[in-house]
Amino acid sequence: MQRDRVKIAVAGFGTVGTGLVKIIENNQEWIVRRIGKEIHIKSILVKDLTKKRDYLPPRHVKFTDSLEDLVSDPEIDIVVELIGGIEVPYEIIKRAILAKKHVVTANKALLAEKGKELFELATYQKVALFFEASVGGGIPIIETLRENLSSNKIVSITGILNGTANFILSQMSQNGLSFKEALSIAQARGYAEADPTLDIEGMDAAHKLIILIMLAYGQNFPLERLTVEGISRVDPYDIQMAGEFGYRIKLIAQVKDRSGHLQAGVYPVLLPRDHILAKVDGAFNAILLEGNAVGPIMLYGQGAGDLPTGSAVLSDIMSIIRNNSFSNTGFFGDRIEDAIILQEEMTSCSHYFRFTVEDRPGVLAILAGIMGERNISIAQVVQKQERRGKYVPVVFLTHRAQIKNVKDAIEEIDRLSFVKPPTQHYRIL
Amino acid sequence: MQRDRVKIAVAGFGTVGTGLVKIIENNQEWIVRRIGKEIHIKSILVKDLTKKRDYLPPRHVKFTDSLEDLVSDPEIDIVVELIGGIEVPYEIIKRAILAKKHVVTANKALLAEKGKELFELATYQKVALFFEASVGGGIPIIETLRENLSSNKIVSITGILNGTANFILSQMSQNGLSFKEALSIAQARGYAEADPTLDIEGMDAAHKLIILIMLAYGQNFPLERLTVEGISRVDPYDIQMAGEFGYRIKLIAQVKDRSGHLQAGVYPVLLPRDHILAKVDGAFNAILLEGNAVGPIMLYGQGAGDLPTGSAVLSDIMSIIRNNSFSNTGFFGDRIEDAIILQEEMTSCSHYFRFTVEDRPGVLAILAGIMGERNISIAQVVQKQERRGKYVPVVFLTHRAQIKNVKDAIEEIDRLSFVKPPTQHYRIL
Repeated sequence: MQRDRVKIAVAGFGTVGTGLVKIIENNQEWIVRRIGKEIHIKSILVKDLTKKRDYLPPRHVKFTDSLEDLVSDPEIDIVVELIGGIEVPYEIIKRAILAKKHVVTANKALLAEKGKELFELATYQKVALFFEASVGGGIPIIETLRENLSSNKIVSITGILNGTANFILSQMSQNGLSFKEALSIAQARGYAEADPTLDIEGMDAAHKLIILIMLAYGQNFPLERLTVEGISRVDPYDIQMAGEFGYRIKLIAQVKDRSGHLQAGVYPVLLPRDHILAKVDGAFNAILLEGNAVGPIMLYGQGAGDLPTGSAVLSDIMSIIRNNSFSNTGFFGDRIEDAIILQEEMTSCSHYFRFTVEDRPGVLAILAGIMGERNISIAQVVQKQERRGKYVPVVFLTHRAQIKNVKDAIEEIDRLSFVKPPTQHYRIL
Repeated sequence: MQRDRVKIAVAGFGTVGTGLVKIIENNQEWIVRRIGKEIHIKSILVKDLTKKRDYLPPRHVKFTDSLEDLVSDPEIDIVVELIGGIEVPYEIIKRAILAKKHVVTANKALLAEKGKELFELATYQKVALFFEASVGGGIPIIETLRENLSSNKIVSITGILNGTANFILSQMSQNGLSFKEALSIAQARGYAEADPTLDIEGMDAAHKLIILIMLAYGQNFPLERLTVEGISRVDPYDIQMAGEFGYRIKLIAQVKDRSGHLQAGVYPVLLPRDHILAKVDGAFNAILLEGNAVGPIMLYGQGAGDLPTGSAVLSDIMSIIRNNSFSNTGFFGDRIEDAIILQEEMTSCSHYFRFTVEDRPGVLAILAGIMGERNISIAQVVQKQERRGKYVPVVFLTHRAQIKNVKDAIEEIDRLSFVKPPTQHYRIL
């Protein structure tokens, strides 16, 4: 990369690809001031060359539908993968690395699944595989973990990593909407896709959490070992009750280092109202880190969108051009180990339960008895006269109790004749 | 730096120096996992070799009172300056750079005054001059501006950069204390020094702002051109009145890019209660950036303390060891230009005034008239029956008005016979 103009290729021309082209066009002079070179997009790989596009790149950019044009072009130093999905991007990135090109990607699903393999390949080929845009949009969380806080052992990471889910929960909370109503608003505003499954069922946040775990601990946490719960089951009644107890419901992704074992999961939780993450509303993302030296650090910003995400991609490109040695993962030799996992069942926290029961004497005592047998100690109980048919809701808040005991208790309680399943359960942070 | 153990020297063994030694000792294995090398503190420069110290470094560390031992030792690759002040650190850093050693410093006052010269020297000598710990303690704001957001043109930076001042204002606000009472609590808890002038008069925040301006814009903003107001004049009555209007008073440091001209200053301002910075309490720091692509980004954390600041110093050391090319300022060739400054007098914003006037008819009309003549349009007026002697306070909130007009109006009003000067004035953000 000794030219005054670095040539790059972009695979994919959707939201982020368009954003990237716009930023490079608008900030070209600024880029030269920063890194002493222009960035020149030589080609863009698309599936359909005939598709009409709202935004067109500058004339010198060539559209192509052949991967060969990217990886076999010796002028291209950096390949940017912005397609999404798994198979095709995997092929593109692998071919690019084998051709000794640096790669920038925003693809969290791919990295969560095939990251270890691709990072090993990149290290072997001595190229960069950078991915700032994969988590938190424009928030510089990747570089913060890889470089800026690398002096710290990370005690915990707690993040609001999915803007769609956070927007939906904020709408439900602020305007008393149902999940479906809030989802349709999110779709109308472009915050949720037509098929919102990845976002609302927690899988998008799970992919991102796995990337953060790799960067913080140098460990490969298998997706299938991660507890993942989404928000489609969240009921406005629980949001209201949580509010009465001083809590807000947020979808969080969390990992904690428990004496060398990692406890990790994605779930909707009750956060105390004055917790710093409880105030993160709308489509924003925020990540609260705790380092063993730095203490708590929070990063906050827009977790998605063409320009914020494009900005992260461009920062990666500029870092690659500026530097000449790369630590893709922030660990020496990019050595990533297998995760040492604390079984989710063995972890404990406080809990919120809402049982739906027949309104008759003795019911509360039976529920409390079943919980007591499993060492689940009750902190507060609220039963209001709000019948739903012949049933009433009863809300329990507990002290710390083990997840295994909680699951067993719910299973037993949901089989009782006077209980209408399913019981609603949330962890309290 | 091809050894398996990188040897460094530390100048100064106060709070941050002690923190650094502790972190290196505690995280040594982790450091090797990250960068493949141990960090070995070879010598510590102190003024008084006979001084009794609460914390002692490991046995292999040699105390010295001679700078020569640091800069003439070919084994030492990195010199860490943690002394504070200007002359002595300037000498140390200059000598170290001339001896081709990399330098890490936490010294904001020195960089604000002599940064341009030292960066030029470091670039010429091809060594790193890193300074993450100089702003925001452990918050990675330096690297975020230098590298992570370098793809953005920065529209504005608004920061709570001084934890002492923020702690004092939080105490005044939450517990209705006077400035002096809150200051003595800050001193008792170790948040404020015996001589707190730099912190409470805004000069510490001003030094930090000048560093951030250099990183964001590549411009050298002379300290003497910066508007700097402290918090010693903040009155609990104004905090209470601001609260009634929905605002909180915070000491902020701000720079805005106004069509290529920089508007910058440090002052206590009224922030809307739901502004994200209004919620930053106690000794915490927070920096809200706005990039032209990324939009708003906030970083939050502990702005001071042995371990947080030591963590930032160690991250710099690790970055230097890990990389082999350095952009100290984030601009190509480390070229820093003279600042293009928008005269503070010419800027405008909304304002809060508290006049202290004799309680008689016609007074309000005269004040309003003087303001009207200077295009200061009044949004709200509150006069309460709270006499202070023969005087009553009258609070005006205005629409946007130019600082020059505001100053002229205050000067004229403070000369009136029925007005007791000085009039209290705050900018509204």
